[in-house]
Amino acid sequence: MTTFAIGVDLGGTNLRIAAVDSNGKTLEKITTSTEVTRGRNYVIDEMCAAIQQLITRFRDAGELSGIGIGVPGIIEMQTGMLHESPNLPGWHNYPVRDEIERRLGTTVVLENDANAAALGEKWLGAGASVDDMCMLTLGTGVGGGVVLNGKVWHGMTGMAGELGHICVDPQGPPCNCGSRGCLEQIASATAVKRMAVEAVATGKAPELARAMTEDPEFSSKVVHQMAIQGDEPAREIFRRVGSALGIAIAGLVNIFNLPMYVIGGGVSSSWDAFAPSMMETLRRNSFVYRATAPIESVRGVQGGSVPDDILPSRRTTIITRALLGSDAGLIGAARLPMLARPVRKTETSSKIA
Amino acid sequence: MTTFAIGVDLGGTNLRIAAVDSNGKTLEKITTSTEVTRGRNYVIDEMCAAIQQLITRFRDAGELSGIGIGVPGIIEMQTGMLHESPNLPGWHNYPVRDEIERRLGTTVVLENDANAAALGEKWLGAGASVDDMCMLTLGTGVGGGVVLNGKVWHGMTGMAGELGHICVDPQGPPCNCGSRGCLEQIASATAVKRMAVEAVATGKAPELARAMTEDPEFSSKVVHQMAIQGDEPAREIFRRVGSALGIAIAGLVNIFNLPMYVIGGGVSSSWDAFAPSMMETLRRNSFVYRATAPIESVRGVQGGSVPDDILPSRRTTIITRALLGSDAGLIGAARLPMLARPVRKTETSSKIA
Repeated sequence: MTTFAIGVDLGGTNLRIAAVDSNGKTLEKITTSTEVTRGRNYVIDEMCAAIQQLITRFRDAGELSGIGIGVPGIIEMQTGMLHESPNLPGWHNYPVRDEIERRLGTTVVLENDANAAALGEKWLGAGASVDDMCMLTLGTGVGGGVVLNGKVWHGMTGMAGELGHICVDPQGPPCNCGSRGCLEQIASATAVKRMAVEAVATGKAPELARAMTEDPEFSSKVVHQMAIQGDEPAREIFRRVGSALGIAIAGLVNIFNLPMYVIGGGVSSSWDAFAPSMMETLRRNSFVYRATAPIESVRGVQGGSVPDDILPSRRTTIITRALLGSDAGLIGAARLPMLARPVRKTETSSKIA
Repeated sequence: MTTFAIGVDLGGTNLRIAAVDSNGKTLEKITTSTEVTRGRNYVIDEMCAAIQQLITRFRDAGELSGIGIGVPGIIEMQTGMLHESPNLPGWHNYPVRDEIERRLGTTVVLENDANAAALGEKWLGAGASVDDMCMLTLGTGVGGGVVLNGKVWHGMTGMAGELGHICVDPQGPPCNCGSRGCLEQIASATAVKRMAVEAVATGKAPELARAMTEDPEFSSKVVHQMAIQGDEPAREIFRRVGSALGIAIAGLVNIFNLPMYVIGGGVSSSWDAFAPSMMETLRRNSFVYRATAPIESVRGVQGGSVPDDILPSRRTTIITRALLGSDAGLIGAARLPMLARPVRKTETSSKIA
């Protein structure tokens, strides 16, 4: 019989909860806002009420395989403590798993939101055909997730996959993490906006300056629109985004040699603006990529001939956009309990027979 | 009963072959030079003769579990082809595994030499207490190996673990791989010597200039001696080595969150000269490291108090020197066939009863 799971994407702005069956079909999705200002107990209460509501509704549709929750920030896997979460102020060192389990009276699987997104893309998105992949989520920050042998690689304390803090320029802008020139400081939506402000400050970006003055909602999306329209300073910003991504992905390819690297999050919709410089940098910086690149991609650079260092086996490295959009984290969260234990046969199977 | 394996470290200069038993005891070790100029067939013939010699000698000591060979360069795991090997000129696209197996009449396990060194340190060296580790081998170049769940992580085509080509400075010196500012261009013995030449060229390194003129064997070891004696330009070179290592390891910690990172190879003997700047850079650049650093290490920076972002569980990230010296690759090569299949019980056990 079909089982189903509850997935939760607990964002700093939106709280989304879905019932997803083991075939990957979303049975129902609830979207509400995360009322962070009313405090963590309130948010957890609301979330647990919505989870209970979906469990009750689908009680007869199959066995509940479990509840998975994607949370922004760093989760200590052993204790279920939220260690650091810029988007959930006041949740520092909060025993979030214990609090949820106490209210629901059952166990839940917690996961970092970027890891959940990687798992979602692996299950039903761009990575469905591979066992191993990295995902970069270009949003307010840059999140990362590493999936090896079909599972999230957590590392020793659950902090693995912080791909947004790969250093792409030791002399680059300072990062909240204490380092400089982290990928996040160049390839996030926040960084695109900051680079636009910096470009305006030079006095050499009149169109960006006008847009910034006229549009109270000025954002990385506006910069992308201007790049599409051919504004050179805006184009240059996305070339920098691409170059930073190329350096980071070159490192990942040299380290992991995986078949697929997926780019998601809001800024990934500017793919056309950053992909050319990303691919150029990746090809130049990673000989592992060149040896495994799709031949048409290498031809583009080498001018027609397939270079000598292409491996005979022609297994290829794919760099691609995510497919699930903002649902990746929600889908991945629902996947968590399905992976955590084998699906059990159950005595309730007659209910849907 | 005890089984034994033959390990081979096929270097560009030395060819070393050992019989190692399943308890990690080296039964015998043969060291000879690799006569690269006599061609690959000659080298393979010599190697296979030595392997046969050891197999015959220990025939009665236990069952042979197999033959493992560490080779410098990139091996395509599926085909056993040597894809690229700067230290074995003329071996490009050479079917090295087939050639060896044809001569010996049995299967062998091939591995990149840096991966073999990582596996050796994991088995009998610095990493004996952990399941997951990265190793950096600072030699003529910088090799890398990633061990996850006790096994070398090969990636899709066996090219994973090229940690020497992590970019630590996008504006840095050009690398043979096509990129710039690879770790190898700053933290290898070759790079230390090059930086010494560059320092002399500025006219501000009189002691290095004198040593370079007087010592026909001028090498990274001489630069290290001068750093120990307090020569400031020599000290500055090792600070750059440390800083580059710190950036690369910070990236690895943020990506993998492993319990251990091991540094081996000739340049690792200059640990005291580069470790302070390495650890300072690592602490600054990786919040994952700070959250998992040994407390005494963090105290050193923070001036006595344990910072707020230390995880309660206190599982720690260890950065340490390799223990097996130049034997790491040989030991790791012998380990390969032991991991490739379970040790079988055998009818010959009465031989040593």
